[in-house]
Amino acid sequence: MEVTPESLKAKIKQQGEKIKMLKAQNAEKSMIDAELAILLDLQKQQASLTGDEGNTKGKNKFTLKTPKGTRDYNEKEMAIREKVFSTIISVFKKHGAVTIDTPVFELKEILSGKYGEDSKLIYDLEDQGGEKCSLRYDLTVPFARFLAMNGAQYQNIKRYQIAKVYRRDQPAMTKGRMREFYQCDFDVAGVFDPMIADAEVVKIMSECLTALDIGKYTIKINHRKILDGIFQVCGVPEERIRPISSAVDKLDKLPWEEVKREMVEDKGLDPEVANRGKELLGELFQNQELIANKSAKSGLDDMALLFKYLEIFGILGEISFDLSLARGLDYYTGIIYEAVTEQSGPPKLGDGTQVVRKSKKDSEDLDESTVGVGSIAAGGRYDNLVGMFASSKKGNIPCVGVSIGVERVFSILLQKVALEQVKANEVEVFVIAVADGLLEDRMKICAELWDAGIKAEFMYKNKPKLQPQFSVCDREQIPLAVIIGRDELNRGEVRIKDMRSKEQGEGGGFSVKRDEMINELKKRLGKL
Amino acid sequence: MEVTPESLKAKIKQQGEKIKMLKAQNAEKSMIDAELAILLDLQKQQASLTGDEGNTKGKNKFTLKTPKGTRDYNEKEMAIREKVFSTIISVFKKHGAVTIDTPVFELKEILSGKYGEDSKLIYDLEDQGGEKCSLRYDLTVPFARFLAMNGAQYQNIKRYQIAKVYRRDQPAMTKGRMREFYQCDFDVAGVFDPMIADAEVVKIMSECLTALDIGKYTIKINHRKILDGIFQVCGVPEERIRPISSAVDKLDKLPWEEVKREMVEDKGLDPEVANRGKELLGELFQNQELIANKSAKSGLDDMALLFKYLEIFGILGEISFDLSLARGLDYYTGIIYEAVTEQSGPPKLGDGTQVVRKSKKDSEDLDESTVGVGSIAAGGRYDNLVGMFASSKKGNIPCVGVSIGVERVFSILLQKVALEQVKANEVEVFVIAVADGLLEDRMKICAELWDAGIKAEFMYKNKPKLQPQFSVCDREQIPLAVIIGRDELNRGEVRIKDMRSKEQGEGGGFSVKRDEMINELKKRLGKL
Repeated sequence: MEVTPESLKAKIKQQGEKIKMLKAQNAEKSMIDAELAILLDLQKQQASLTGDEGNTKGKNKFTLKTPKGTRDYNEKEMAIREKVFSTIISVFKKHGAVTIDTPVFELKEILSGKYGEDSKLIYDLEDQGGEKCSLRYDLTVPFARFLAMNGAQYQNIKRYQIAKVYRRDQPAMTKGRMREFYQCDFDVAGVFDPMIADAEVVKIMSECLTALDIGKYTIKINHRKILDGIFQVCGVPEERIRPISSAVDKLDKLPWEEVKREMVEDKGLDPEVANRGKELLGELFQNQELIANKSAKSGLDDMALLFKYLEIFGILGEISFDLSLARGLDYYTGIIYEAVTEQSGPPKLGDGTQVVRKSKKDSEDLDESTVGVGSIAAGGRYDNLVGMFASSKKGNIPCVGVSIGVERVFSILLQKVALEQVKANEVEVFVIAVADGLLEDRMKICAELWDAGIKAEFMYKNKPKLQPQFSVCDREQIPLAVIIGRDELNRGEVRIKDMRSKEQGEGGGFSVKRDEMINELKKRLGKL
Repeated sequence: MEVTPESLKAKIKQQGEKIKMLKAQNAEKSMIDAELAILLDLQKQQASLTGDEGNTKGKNKFTLKTPKGTRDYNEKEMAIREKVFSTIISVFKKHGAVTIDTPVFELKEILSGKYGEDSKLIYDLEDQGGEKCSLRYDLTVPFARFLAMNGAQYQNIKRYQIAKVYRRDQPAMTKGRMREFYQCDFDVAGVFDPMIADAEVVKIMSECLTALDIGKYTIKINHRKILDGIFQVCGVPEERIRPISSAVDKLDKLPWEEVKREMVEDKGLDPEVANRGKELLGELFQNQELIANKSAKSGLDDMALLFKYLEIFGILGEISFDLSLARGLDYYTGIIYEAVTEQSGPPKLGDGTQVVRKSKKDSEDLDESTVGVGSIAAGGRYDNLVGMFASSKKGNIPCVGVSIGVERVFSILLQKVALEQVKANEVEVFVIAVADGLLEDRMKICAELWDAGIKAEFMYKNKPKLQPQFSVCDREQIPLAVIIGRDELNRGEVRIKDMRSKEQGEGGGFSVKRDEMINELKKRLGKL
């Protein structure tokens, strides 16, 4: 029945009058509610008929899309994504990690004041009565809230969480930046002897990146206390250190000259300090002024210990001490790190120099579309975040963690594989009839296979032709077929065909007794 | 540094004046922005100090909770949940299912008019500029939207999706009803010969419930077209069929008398029809009036075919044809089903009769807290939902599916297991030092184990005592320990101890050469 705006309008009017009448008659509330529901539905139909999409001949029409900055993942993309997740999770579990789950939205006040300038990117839920809530912006703050709530049980925990987070950012989808995206966090919470947990987290980061097979990577490490010490030594006033840190953190995203301008002109830092970059590293331990600074000294001691442990873990070769690394988020208090791969970092010029180190003039020659997807994993120590939620100092729990950039890993892998070649389903056996359809026999055999734990399918057709059934096996890369015909069934036999060997032709394969079928299939599937 | 409301207020005033001054001086925008960020942060600190929680001596204080109707899941609960998910997913995969992922929120208009009266339970996102979005209410409508968007590629697909959905319902947490909860959907989309896919979906439902090991269950089946036919034959006007269906659907939730009252008094159905319930079943095929009704006849033919296929699949014994089943949602068009277990259904009285069948007087004796968690799985055929999104009739794709009530499964399992006994982490080997701490050696050995794929931990302490290290093994149920002492190390040996056998005492175990350690551990872990 074609619904027209006119017929709807008439119906809505009629329904409205019915409800008025019922109310006038003092009818039971549930009766009126039922009629109201009908009215509501009619009105919704009307809204969708006459909505923004225009009134196209009275046919229902929706904007068929996902919200800005979000997307669907089809079955082939999901197969890759699940591979990424299971690879990472198996590394986490190797280190004794457990997982927890927190709600996708938190009380608004829980997220307030945790993200500095980025707070404006938080999604709020509409006030529909009740509490004010916001979608989580990351997994770290909810984890800290969880620890503060359950502190007594969690004096220490190694936890991972892989879940979606939400940011009202300007999406740049081709680079893997979205408004809804997965984060994949591993954190160790608890009071321990210095730098041991920190070193294991860096080791885990390294194991994940190696296991994901996304090419060469470097883990850049720095220490907030060293940065703070440098700023103090340079006479940067306390309240300006955070804004300057966030300028330092832009080093790999903006041309260096631009950052220096921001640090020097806007934020008032001495150009000499801003410009010394990596060369500062070798001097740090010799620098008497710096060593005299309590914060810098403490950071340098941490780094020395960390490097010793990383050497024991056999990953020192992957590490680079990089004073230009600052990490944007406010809550870091100790070591900070960020992994970049050749594919994720900023593009290099012909001479192998990173573009960010070149002058403004050079960087203008860049093709934006070749810019990498940024860091592939990052994290650090945040010793005070849990305390922000705790009612007493005793409730604080220091933490150190890493976030693996699974969306970026995913982008890199997508560039490497031919998506159409990805086998999304895991079907092992396709049950085929050579004649007469034999639907009930195909169903019976499939049920037998399922009950034996074999992944099997058949065609949802009473009398399928032979060729389309073989085509499914080809298209879905199904390795084995059980082929049945009237004669075989009468003899109590079925034919098994290995679809991976093309030589046999359609008539190929070999016959087995029905009661040997399961065993034979399992043998060929390596399941025995 | 203790932050007091007074000191904050002063700082905020000062900061505000600084910004005013900068603006007056026509300062650079980025400079003003940096100062604004500091102001914003101060104001947030102030908000959290003077918020609803009251001004308790100037100490930061948050309402430490998750939003109403949501909760965290700790590592032991997650271990159970992941077991539930992997059990179900392996059933889905056995039937050739793939998975897709859709965003947690959709454009508001996508969800409009899909859920009848329940639309009021949809969570909207705040309008922060841009599109109007709502959190998904189920996984079915987003799946239909996905199919309509990608119709060309998906003329048929078997897909599952396990993800959270959101409903602003009055939570009854003890019964497993929440505002944020997981749904676990399996659907088959495509045009096939009748009832074959439907039968496989019911088979999958049965396999899932069996694999989950939650006790005996019954799958109640009905057909929307039979219900529609009955209502038509009884002379129920077309526009009243849906409200009446939803009354029928409450049979297992409200006392029968109450439903009958609603159907008879509020919705104007002849009491004779409402009262015939299950007894109608046997008469249906004989009932000439019903067979003459096109809708009823078509539904009855479907049911006959379905029952034949379910017999082939060997699950007819689990099925009950139940005319009182109607399912609330508007979009079902064919068979509908719902599984109940003894633990999930309404409680029974002493005589084994379901309470809903008893008179109002009896039901008043009920202890509400003993009421079960409702149906454990449910679904049906919905042939027109995708068409609501498609721009042409050709774009429609008929679907049939099932939703496994994983939250209810989870509640039932939680009652069965002792949560403290659940092993959440998977650590296989704990590396222990008997003296001197030997931190670096423990780290070296752990790195060796990790690199060999063995799940291992050590204590994050420079000089741990022996007993606490053994306690970790006990508490975490870690099966093996590698024990090192200065002497063993000098001899190039380590001691391996099986922590599951208590007899040996702390000194037990046996020594192996360092280079045999990995092999020996793998042997004992069944990894060779």
